[in-house]
Amino acid sequence: MLINSTVYENGNPVRHVGIPDISENLEQPGRFIWVALLDPTAEELTEMQDEFDLHPLAIEDARHGHQRPKLEEYGDTLFSAIHLLELVDDEIRVGEVDIFVHPRFVLSIRSHSTQSFAVVRARCEREPELLKQGAGFVFYALLDHVVDSYFQLVEHLESELEEIESAIFAKSAARSNIERLYELKRKSTIVRHAALPMLEFVGKLHGGRVPPVCQQSQEYFRDVSDHLARIAMAIDSVRDAISTAIEVNLSIVTIEDTEVTKKLAAWASIFAASTALAGIWGMNFEFMPELKWRWGYPVALGVIATVSVLLFRRFRKAGWL
Amino acid sequence: MLINSTVYENGNPVRHVGIPDISENLEQPGRFIWVALLDPTAEELTEMQDEFDLHPLAIEDARHGHQRPKLEEYGDTLFSAIHLLELVDDEIRVGEVDIFVHPRFVLSIRSHSTQSFAVVRARCEREPELLKQGAGFVFYALLDHVVDSYFQLVEHLESELEEIESAIFAKSAARSNIERLYELKRKSTIVRHAALPMLEFVGKLHGGRVPPVCQQSQEYFRDVSDHLARIAMAIDSVRDAISTAIEVNLSIVTIEDTEVTKKLAAWASIFAASTALAGIWGMNFEFMPELKWRWGYPVALGVIATVSVLLFRRFRKAGWL
Amino acid sequence: MLINSTVYENGNPVRHVGIPDISENLEQPGRFIWVALLDPTAEELTEMQDEFDLHPLAIEDARHGHQRPKLEEYGDTLFSAIHLLELVDDEIRVGEVDIFVHPRFVLSIRSHSTQSFAVVRARCEREPELLKQGAGFVFYALLDHVVDSYFQLVEHLESELEEIESAIFAKSAARSNIERLYELKRKSTIVRHAALPMLEFVGKLHGGRVPPVCQQSQEYFRDVSDHLARIAMAIDSVRDAISTAIEVNLSIVTIEDTEVTKKLAAWASIFAASTALAGIWGMNFEFMPELKWRWGYPVALGVIATVSVLLFRRFRKAGWL
Amino acid sequence: MLINSTVYENGNPVRHVGIPDISENLEQPGRFIWVALLDPTAEELTEMQDEFDLHPLAIEDARHGHQRPKLEEYGDTLFSAIHLLELVDDEIRVGEVDIFVHPRFVLSIRSHSTQSFAVVRARCEREPELLKQGAGFVFYALLDHVVDSYFQLVEHLESELEEIESAIFAKSAARSNIERLYELKRKSTIVRHAALPMLEFVGKLHGGRVPPVCQQSQEYFRDVSDHLARIAMAIDSVRDAISTAIEVNLSIVTIEDTEVTKKLAAWASIFAASTALAGIWGMNFEFMPELKWRWGYPVALGVIATVSVLLFRRFRKAGWL
Amino acid sequence: MLINSTVYENGNPVRHVGIPDISENLEQPGRFIWVALLDPTAEELTEMQDEFDLHPLAIEDARHGHQRPKLEEYGDTLFSAIHLLELVDDEIRVGEVDIFVHPRFVLSIRSHSTQSFAVVRARCEREPELLKQGAGFVFYALLDHVVDSYFQLVEHLESELEEIESAIFAKSAARSNIERLYELKRKSTIVRHAALPMLEFVGKLHGGRVPPVCQQSQEYFRDVSDHLARIAMAIDSVRDAISTAIEVNLSIVTIEDTEVTKKLAAWASIFAASTALAGIWGMNFEFMPELKWRWGYPVALGVIATVSVLLFRRFRKAGWL
Repeated sequence: MLINSTVYENGNPVRHVGIPDISENLEQPGRFIWVALLDPTAEELTEMQDEFDLHPLAIEDARHGHQRPKLEEYGDTLFSAIHLLELVDDEIRVGEVDIFVHPRFVLSIRSHSTQSFAVVRARCEREPELLKQGAGFVFYALLDHVVDSYFQLVEHLESELEEIESAIFAKSAARSNIERLYELKRKSTIVRHAALPMLEFVGKLHGGRVPPVCQQSQEYFRDVSDHLARIAMAIDSVRDAISTAIEVNLSIVTIEDTEVTKKLAAWASIFAASTALAGIWGMNFEFMPELKWRWGYPVALGVIATVSVLLFRRFRKAGWL
Repeated sequence: MLINSTVYENGNPVRHVGIPDISENLEQPGRFIWVALLDPTAEELTEMQDEFDLHPLAIEDARHGHQRPKLEEYGDTLFSAIHLLELVDDEIRVGEVDIFVHPRFVLSIRSHSTQSFAVVRARCEREPELLKQGAGFVFYALLDHVVDSYFQLVEHLESELEEIESAIFAKSAARSNIERLYELKRKSTIVRHAALPMLEFVGKLHGGRVPPVCQQSQEYFRDVSDHLARIAMAIDSVRDAISTAIEVNLSIVTIEDTEVTKKLAAWASIFAASTALAGIWGMNFEFMPELKWRWGYPVALGVIATVSVLLFRRFRKAGWL
Repeated sequence: MLINSTVYENGNPVRHVGIPDISENLEQPGRFIWVALLDPTAEELTEMQDEFDLHPLAIEDARHGHQRPKLEEYGDTLFSAIHLLELVDDEIRVGEVDIFVHPRFVLSIRSHSTQSFAVVRARCEREPELLKQGAGFVFYALLDHVVDSYFQLVEHLESELEEIESAIFAKSAARSNIERLYELKRKSTIVRHAALPMLEFVGKLHGGRVPPVCQQSQEYFRDVSDHLARIAMAIDSVRDAISTAIEVNLSIVTIEDTEVTKKLAAWASIFAASTALAGIWGMNFEFMPELKWRWGYPVALGVIATVSVLLFRRFRKAGWL
Repeated sequence: MLINSTVYENGNPVRHVGIPDISENLEQPGRFIWVALLDPTAEELTEMQDEFDLHPLAIEDARHGHQRPKLEEYGDTLFSAIHLLELVDDEIRVGEVDIFVHPRFVLSIRSHSTQSFAVVRARCEREPELLKQGAGFVFYALLDHVVDSYFQLVEHLESELEEIESAIFAKSAARSNIERLYELKRKSTIVRHAALPMLEFVGKLHGGRVPPVCQQSQEYFRDVSDHLARIAMAIDSVRDAISTAIEVNLSIVTIEDTEVTKKLAAWASIFAASTALAGIWGMNFEFMPELKWRWGYPVALGVIATVSVLLFRRFRKAGWL
Repeated sequence: MLINSTVYENGNPVRHVGIPDISENLEQPGRFIWVALLDPTAEELTEMQDEFDLHPLAIEDARHGHQRPKLEEYGDTLFSAIHLLELVDDEIRVGEVDIFVHPRFVLSIRSHSTQSFAVVRARCEREPELLKQGAGFVFYALLDHVVDSYFQLVEHLESELEEIESAIFAKSAARSNIERLYELKRKSTIVRHAALPMLEFVGKLHGGRVPPVCQQSQEYFRDVSDHLARIAMAIDSVRDAISTAIEVNLSIVTIEDTEVTKKLAAWASIFAASTALAGIWGMNFEFMPELKWRWGYPVALGVIATVSVLLFRRFRKAGWL
């Protein structure tokens, strides 16, 4: 579905054009066209391939989706596949945007995502002096927007981690903690797979041999690169903390097990001693003089109680009870 | 066994040739011959070595099999050994294909595998404008086909992992989970050993110093490279998840152990208290006034029941029962 | 808030200048101005951007804060973001200082930190022969001061680790140990995130292609680099030791569990044997000759005692008691 | 001890020479001499140093032995130290061979090993057209022979691992498994330390700047390199599997512990319930009407049996029994 | 404290000189002076700085000590800080030696260490033909001596590891094993921190761009480098083995726990069965015909014994007893 298709000149929108008129607008120097598609049909993709003369392998990738984030040069045209991550019902949904960047055009193809890029276009049109840098700046603005959405996810992961961390030490909910930690790790892997390859390829858009279409906006790509490095660092921290938290959770469970075993041992001893004593005085020997004593029973009860109290004290002192 | 041996000119099949006629067809410019062997005998290999003038070390490798995936240049000829992986009875069977690529010929030697390359040949013949790129494109098409089969395996691993993951948290089948995780890790190692060295050497077929025979198809090799990078990433995720799952499974088992210990401790306490009380009233002292009481027995039962209920409540409150 | 703004010539302070007079002082050769801001307002930042002609992206970073430590070149101007770490109530508080370095000026913008740089200025002014090296030396002096504060934190972490280590083996406080180790790891991550990116970028200030403004002070930056390498090594040691300590703590807990289980098993056996014996002689069979014996009871007690002692000895010998 | 000392010309053995005649044979162009020593005395080494003009540091290394595998260039002479691994009584015995390679001579000094190189010499003499490549080819043949012996060890490790793996899941022999895994890891370390440094230095014998004496045999060294890479990969797999197997073994032990704890808890409950009931009816209250009933005893037994059966069923259902 | 200060010419000692005469001796070509200090005072350091014209940053480092091992070039002068490790009372004491190397002089400043370098000087003077190489050779001799002392420590660590390893499997001393392993890891970290940075910088003293003063002794530095590589490999092995040993120790403890739990469960069952049976016949029902039987008691004892023996056999068969 075509969302928008506008020609820009000197950083300002000139006019909207229909798909069939795209190619003739491409020839005019000093202009570029910015086309946005959403979940396009195979026909729309073929149309775009014809209008913009795109490489069949890139179109193939756009058609299939589920690409690893990447940047490829086909002659003057850059092709970039980027993951769009959304938090839906506490699950991360992975969509994709494929972007073709050429001095004369930008084509963004968004799939499986509700994240609109209208705000990016609005922001660009508010700053014509920057948009003057051309198609490269649009590419930057799109990347920047996506990376910002990653930041929100990373913050979500971090706050979830903090919640679990406090649960580990506060109350005993070992099973749900471990489940949540596992789930958190899975989520962090999704974000990592989105951000890391991107960090790699954005690094090629500043500093060294930069594709011509991005050369004017190098410092902006360095900024994106820096943000991605921060995201990568944050995710690594989260993942490292998850590993440690799983170990720590196991330790806490084992500690609790020991505590229960101690308590069990202590009470078992106390009751067993009482039972053994009671059993002895319950034997049926004829000549058990204490059984005849007037105060035999109270004394027996006293002995049992004393032994129990002594054991109790000893275990309490040893920290078992 | 000779499977097929066809001469191509300008991307179109010209004619089938027998083995003895191969060498004379090699001299004709603008043509290349594509020969496919299956589980060849030593004699067939020697014949090929003579016809195509192959290096003895490469032929040695092809004869022995069980090579690490690799790409080697012997003069103008590329020699590549690649693993063929098939899922047979839930086990991964490792076969091998050795490919010689030269501007004038492609020789593929398949062993221990039922994976036919007839579909590759058919696909190539359907696209003569691409096959025109020559022997390098055939090499690409073969690689692409193999890598696609890896994808299916990776998906198999991923779905198996998901199954185990849900089993870990859902029902207690710790022993079989751990067995399956171990098995899954072993399988992932096989796929990893097939894909990783390949990722490394396919990286040399685009971008930098590319062997002449592959130069025209560079963008296609980049595509294979990209697919392999995705596979490598997916396998790494699977392996990472397996490690975590083993740890988590252990945690769950330990948690369960603690729960059982708690229950044991609780019931042991309740019964032990009852037994100790009953034991006391079972002692044979003469002067135990309560034994004479009319309501002694019901009261005793009441005491035992009360103590048991109190303990039960306390343990339930503490989450032990 | 403007803290200080002084013009230096030949390593000596010449005069204080107000913000509006900054730009005219910038033109005079052989001089540089050193401006220090604390938690500046948006207006102050804009003023600085105008006076020093700073790049909007750098100012954006300074405004937002929470940057990853970094060094960026914008033409002749270096922009560096550095973490300021303070230990407040046993927690590490992360502040930030953003430094712009240019042959004609140094601008330091400190936020969320009580760590004053007045001592750095004092030290610089005490050594005019070094301050003569220019703005680069001021940058070095600031870095050196920050890195020194990191050293104190690392020593704090190391001494905390030592305390926990001795607790692990000395007395059993498994739960608090694990909590403290987790907390320590979290702290070490903060210091690591401050120091590691810095190590990376300070490495670019000596040896290879060094920005002109820092060229004269290269050996000093090598010194900072060396300090950071030491910090990185120390943190890695601490983190490695934490991992091992968590494992070791778990081992100690498990060992303790085994010891308790052994004791439980031993005492349970002793009491159970006594109870079983007493139970046998408590049976109500008519023909139990030993019950009639004169010395039956003492002999029974003797048997029970003997069995208990024998078991006790055996368990003691086996190391269970 | 001198094992062999033969002069080769054009790939064919010309004559055997005694040690004193070595140096004069060195001068003749188109020839090289191949000398093999076994556990040489200090005097023999000094003699060799004089005859071949070897560097004192290399001779020092040969004298001391226990070197890390390495390759060093001393002018035209290559010096290489390589581990010889033999399986003796299920233990890996580490010997060493030091090889000096020079266009005019090969000197191999074998120590602490029964692995004879006679087969290497025989193989070389069977292929004069390859031996014509000179001393470099002899070096290759020696390396190839050693690497082949590593393969056997790796296979030994792999089959041992497989045996242990099946033991982990099949029957419970946790203690011996863990001991064998630890031993296997130790062995794998020995092989790794032999193979990894070798992989590193053999990599310098093909492709880039290759020492002149090895230049003609580059493709052969690439073959050795490839074999070593396979060995390295195999050892890494084994070591990785060992780590996982240790974890898995621990998991299995913990699972077994839980199973035993469950059984213990179940039977303890059943017996404790019976005992408590029996204890109640064993109390000595005067007014316990059921004691007088004609069918009291059978009913009591019935109650005890019913409770036991009910408990048994419940535990079986819960999977505890 | 000045230990020694000798002028060498052509590899032979010429004369001892006092500190004040150093600078005039520096000017004579073909000579160098070798000065050794021990725990110098601040004044002595300043004196040295003046005599040899040393860089203030290097002197600062020498004054403070506790440096990370490093090598720095200040013009023609190399400055190197190296750890001296001594085993004192089973603890590793870390001292330091700072070495300045210049074509005209070597200055070694030893602190916090009893390790004398007199043997190095003696060895150098015994080999004037090597000492002729100049100050670089002295530097090599010092490094070689230090690295040799590291070897002894590594052997100490290895033999300690072996001792612990045998303790893990032989007898049960889990707690002390874990303590010793932790301590061993700490020690290995100290040696590692001494050796690893050194390996890094010694690598710069041969092969590539080598400082002029060391150029003549390159092969000797390569030898040191090789020794350090061996040390690094050995330490890595030790540390890897420690990690595995900690895991294995935990496994052994857990296995032992399971064994105890099994025994406990077995004996508890046997006694509980006896007690339950005895309890049943101890009930006070009037109509319990077997109580009246002449052989009731022996039969009851027989039943109890039979049940016990049956249970015992079953548990023994299951490997629980």
